[in-house]
Amino acid sequence: MNKEIALLPNERLDDLLSYGLHIIQSREVFSFSMDAVLLARFAGIPPKGNVLDLCTGNGVIPLLLSTRTKAIIDAVEIQPRLADMARRSVAWNGLREQIRVYEGDLRTFFDRSQYGSYDAITINPPYLPPENGDQNENEHYAFARHELNGSLDEMVQVCAKLVRTGGKVSMVHRPSRLVEITETMRRHRLEPKRIRFVHPHEEAESNIVLIEAARDGKPEVRLLPPLIVYNEERQYKEELMRIYYGEARPGQEKKES
Amino acid sequence: MNKEIALLPNERLDDLLSYGLHIIQSREVFSFSMDAVLLARFAGIPPKGNVLDLCTGNGVIPLLLSTRTKAIIDAVEIQPRLADMARRSVAWNGLREQIRVYEGDLRTFFDRSQYGSYDAITINPPYLPPENGDQNENEHYAFARHELNGSLDEMVQVCAKLVRTGGKVSMVHRPSRLVEITETMRRHRLEPKRIRFVHPHEEAESNIVLIEAARDGKPEVRLLPPLIVYNEERQYKEELMRIYYGEARPGQEKKES
Repeated sequence: MNKEIALLPNERLDDLLSYGLHIIQSREVFSFSMDAVLLARFAGIPPKGNVLDLCTGNGVIPLLLSTRTKAIIDAVEIQPRLADMARRSVAWNGLREQIRVYEGDLRTFFDRSQYGSYDAITINPPYLPPENGDQNENEHYAFARHELNGSLDEMVQVCAKLVRTGGKVSMVHRPSRLVEITETMRRHRLEPKRIRFVHPHEEAESNIVLIEAARDGKPEVRLLPPLIVYNEERQYKEELMRIYYGEARPGQEKKES
Repeated sequence: MNKEIALLPNERLDDLLSYGLHIIQSREVFSFSMDAVLLARFAGIPPKGNVLDLCTGNGVIPLLLSTRTKAIIDAVEIQPRLADMARRSVAWNGLREQIRVYEGDLRTFFDRSQYGSYDAITINPPYLPPENGDQNENEHYAFARHELNGSLDEMVQVCAKLVRTGGKVSMVHRPSRLVEITETMRRHRLEPKRIRFVHPHEEAESNIVLIEAARDGKPEVRLLPPLIVYNEERQYKEELMRIYYGEARPGQEKKES
């Protein structure tokens, strides 16, 4: 095993159960969630070009996106520990040619020369305002859950600057903040175009929302069919299984790594 | 039959199939739609007090609301023909003590003394901007479909002025305008609190959205379970049947008319 991709103490290598991908995780930091997997499948992504994933965490979204596009994928994470894990996972999967992981604060990482340079951006930001922070929380978890390193407005603004006109910005978030999110996107010239609500089961309120916006898009949004996670027997419904276990999309073959 | 509630030529008396209610309709003007029925069941309505229905058309919403509340219900319609039909339907159902139908333009009908005087407001406005108008359309249909007598912004503004602090404004509209609607509501201090999307069937995009906002409410919204109209056999699903055929809510008895 290459030293660069060796596991550190308390780390494990998880099978993403999709396209043969693996990912390094650890209980000491935030693991990827269903939300990230859903975003990676939902987001509008070009077949080639330049894609950016912000708040990338341990890199699950760029790893999954690599099965859908030949685009170069940049990924930015503010926590050194997570950026390092993401970089080693990319190497483990043999994807260093396609995915470039950077450690940095998205508010200061980019310069003007990069404005408008991405065809698509994905972001799975912290869901809670900073004031809801639990002071006893592990710092890694706190950063993943609370807006301690940038507000929703700051993050949307960065996306709006970096994406090209007509390019897509896709976000996963909590439905309780829907109005604030769509208002903030529109204020920064990101027009919501596709929204999908995820419900744990058919008779439950939504707990996850997926939103795709287009830079300078026409103001008209499509509300996709609801995505229901569990059937009445508390098993994953068929579509969820397809999303999780990586059905190849038409024209996309399973990647050899 | 009382002359006041006699049917005019080309009018018919339809059974609302709910609580013994009937409604006067005519092919010459816009008939009520499923949208109005869904709004009448969805809207947050107090057990008593003062309720207002704007763009009331032939009065289907106040008729259905009367089964859910003892509140006085004011209803305003700009088209004289429809206001007259609504008034006669109210009389036919013996509801003149509870429902008062006014003919008028909602933008000019109310004076300052009425600001903040309603506990709840319902509105089923035209869905299309004026520029989409079909010039060959029957005037009655054009008024019902297009914003020819007030923009969405003007209508939301009127609702915001007339409802009391904490009172509810409930609207049915097209999902394609979701972002504009929630943004407009918030701009006028109506905070969306409950949203429900209606889908023709489980795998279809939403074609109707129900939104309830609270005047000066806290910015946090609940996304209710999807309302699916048809099952796989193209029959109404159970919840739709209950909504349409008037299951009494807990504590609300079928009204004797």
